[in-house]
Amino acid sequence: MKTPFVEGDEMEAYRIKPGCRLALKRFDPDDTGAYKKNEDGKAKAKAAAAELIAALDQMQERLYANGTRALLIVLQGMDTSGKDGTIRSVMSGVNPQGCKVVSFKTPSAEELAHDFLWRVHQKAPAKGLIGIFNRSHYEDVLITRVHGWVSDKVVKRRFDQIKEFEELLTESGTAILKFFLHISKDEQKERLEARICDPEKRWKWNSGDLEERKLWDDYMTAFEEVIAATSTDQAPWYIVPANRKWYRNLVVAEVVVQALAAMKLSTPPAPKGVNFKKLKIT
Amino acid sequence: MKTPFVEGDEMEAYRIKPGCRLALKRFDPDDTGAYKKNEDGKAKAKAAAAELIAALDQMQERLYANGTRALLIVLQGMDTSGKDGTIRSVMSGVNPQGCKVVSFKTPSAEELAHDFLWRVHQKAPAKGLIGIFNRSHYEDVLITRVHGWVSDKVVKRRFDQIKEFEELLTESGTAILKFFLHISKDEQKERLEARICDPEKRWKWNSGDLEERKLWDDYMTAFEEVIAATSTDQAPWYIVPANRKWYRNLVVAEVVVQALAAMKLSTPPAPKGVNFKKLKIT
Repeated sequence: MKTPFVEGDEMEAYRIKPGCRLALKRFDPDDTGAYKKNEDGKAKAKAAAAELIAALDQMQERLYANGTRALLIVLQGMDTSGKDGTIRSVMSGVNPQGCKVVSFKTPSAEELAHDFLWRVHQKAPAKGLIGIFNRSHYEDVLITRVHGWVSDKVVKRRFDQIKEFEELLTESGTAILKFFLHISKDEQKERLEARICDPEKRWKWNSGDLEERKLWDDYMTAFEEVIAATSTDQAPWYIVPANRKWYRNLVVAEVVVQALAAMKLSTPPAPKGVNFKKLKIT
Repeated sequence: MKTPFVEGDEMEAYRIKPGCRLALKRFDPDDTGAYKKNEDGKAKAKAAAAELIAALDQMQERLYANGTRALLIVLQGMDTSGKDGTIRSVMSGVNPQGCKVVSFKTPSAEELAHDFLWRVHQKAPAKGLIGIFNRSHYEDVLITRVHGWVSDKVVKRRFDQIKEFEELLTESGTAILKFFLHISKDEQKERLEARICDPEKRWKWNSGDLEERKLWDDYMTAFEEVIAATSTDQAPWYIVPANRKWYRNLVVAEVVVQALAAMKLSTPPAPKGVNFKKLKIT
């Protein structure tokens, strides 16, 4: 199968190496990589993304047919950072039979009566599938921490528990990719204002978003710490420049396609013990 | 929103009216409706389907945004009738966040320890979603009956239980559409032979399919009875001519789009109690 992306690893700049300190300030949410910040750059990036998305559909079909591996995509980011939009833009076009999206909301009473990974583990993708977590177990070391609902000691312990949980998944055949959709505080302001001004978008308004916005700096610190602590070779975090949706989509699509290509899946073998030459349908 | 399908009800011919006897022989699997059985007809049908599928994506977005209704699509048919292909062709392009496909396989020990609707009920689509059942609770009155694993008395009781279950769903806001993908026995022969001859398709081979093929007539009788017994105004069955994939896709897409259009969903209202004119983001 032809893989349209450039050989090499253009996206390496966004991947967080294990064991490094992370300063989000050093990552520009406005970054557009090799593409110009104008209509021409946008058009070229969109064309490149379209090629990747077409390849993704093919690769997912093969993933499903083989049923030997899975891919888990974790999406995190501030409100309005584009988690829903990324799913819509990158994953529409993929056969929904092989793609399961799970949105983690406020935990139910039953979920709260279990450890924080209980509900998440149940939703891990089966072999053959792409699973997408729209928010995830990382909320349990982000919103909970910023609001002081859990102690720092518990949070640090959870970092280890998360790494061990993800290691269990990767050792069982699931590739894991974690994306932090990185927007600036100004960009969030614009997106929230759009929800206020455009009557067609008002239904998306959630006054709680304003409360979380007040805690912006605390969130950035919490993200920096958790990303640095939990980015591993097997389950890396990517800081995705997300002020421009077209570049955000391109980065996510390319990383996903690279991960699927790295699985080197081919057409599944024919079932054993069947003599195809002698088979006859009557 | 513009709905591209023709006003009226072209698909009525395929819908099974409640309380009627059904003879599958009177439905031609080769039927292509208003489209010619040549390359020109195929191209026109594909263009019409593409328009419907684009509309479907928009309508699904609205379904998801409103979160007040759900749509359940049930796909049944003989092996190779195109259940997977229909999902792939009609539902690729739809945002997977709003679309959940469930493939019902051989029940697990835990599932068998419950009534036959237990596992199915758990997978009913939540409000806002399109749920697709690739096989369904109908297997429990089809394969089980043809093989004599359950008595006719139990099967007849299950017809009522299915109707009551589906009524519960429809009264709770879920529209239900049930499709029997109708292929001829000759067409199945060709499709099975393709899996034998084409090495790229051999992985799909399942020797069990040949065993079921021997029971073709029994299956047709079982389908006739269950479809006649469980087609209701709220949860109708459609007999989809499925020898030609392009017409099958068109029929399913049109029925689905009609069902979503009938919900008459608009942009959801803005949250109450918010004074949008006074809101200010800092």
